[in-house]
Amino acid sequence: MASSSYSNNSPCAACKFLRRKCMSDCIFSPYFPPEEPHKFVNVHKIFGASNVSKILNEVLPHQREDAVNSLAYEAEARIKDPVYGCVGAISVLQRQVLRLQKELDAANADLIRYSACSETPTTHHGGSGFYYPWNNHG
Amino acid sequence: MASSSYSNNSPCAACKFLRRKCMSDCIFSPYFPPEEPHKFVNVHKIFGASNVSKILNEVLPHQREDAVNSLAYEAEARIKDPVYGCVGAISVLQRQVLRLQKELDAANADLIRYSACSETPTTHHGGSGFYYPWNNHG
Repeated sequence: MASSSYSNNSPCAACKFLRRKCMSDCIFSPYFPPEEPHKFVNVHKIFGASNVSKILNEVLPHQREDAVNSLAYEAEARIKDPVYGCVGAISVLQRQVLRLQKELDAANADLIRYSACSETPTTHHGGSGFYYPWNNHG
Repeated sequence: MASSSYSNNSPCAACKFLRRKCMSDCIFSPYFPPEEPHKFVNVHKIFGASNVSKILNEVLPHQREDAVNSLAYEAEARIKDPVYGCVGAISVLQRQVLRLQKELDAANADLIRYSACSETPTTHHGGSGFYYPWNNHG
């Protein structure tokens, strides 16, 4: 009877880690397969099994996979960078957006200058391989 | 003697929430002032006090304020969006970077066309207020 209460042949990664029976209605089972033990270890380390379970119960069943994947992403980022976690990635992306916006503004300003001297748009003359410094910014 | 063990006149937001004495060596006290109760409530709800304490002990003292602020940011994002949390912001920024890169590539391609017809760069002729569709993308 006990073995038939497992949702699969082997318990999910969460139940295996928590050393408990993996029941057929286990909230973790569909999202933490035994083949990916680190996924649960990471979210457990950062959020705690109880908080993960609460979040999963709070969202709709079809949203749970996305919720688990975003939690796993956050947990991994926090383990790699305990100070900033995935907020570090947000800062990098925000700086990248600002840099690209600045480069785009500069390119548009150049285009305005060119277009003011040329009433009809020119046709394409190739230019492949032409070096532009703004294509090579770090 | 009990009252002198508080780090300030009033306990920090963490100790107040956890209904415990706020000792002079409280790990939360410098980062969770009593005036900002929600900061601790949020990180406690998402990460748990124990995990926050572990992360704070794992990083250097001068990094703890940044660690708390990034945890508070993540917690607030997860409360607002239980499915994606701040990973949602990362997706939005990644799409924004791709869009800007595409617009920049298009602007650079236009510049290549213009420059192929004009050997010397033109001087600036104003153009303020000139409408360009790529300045107005959603």
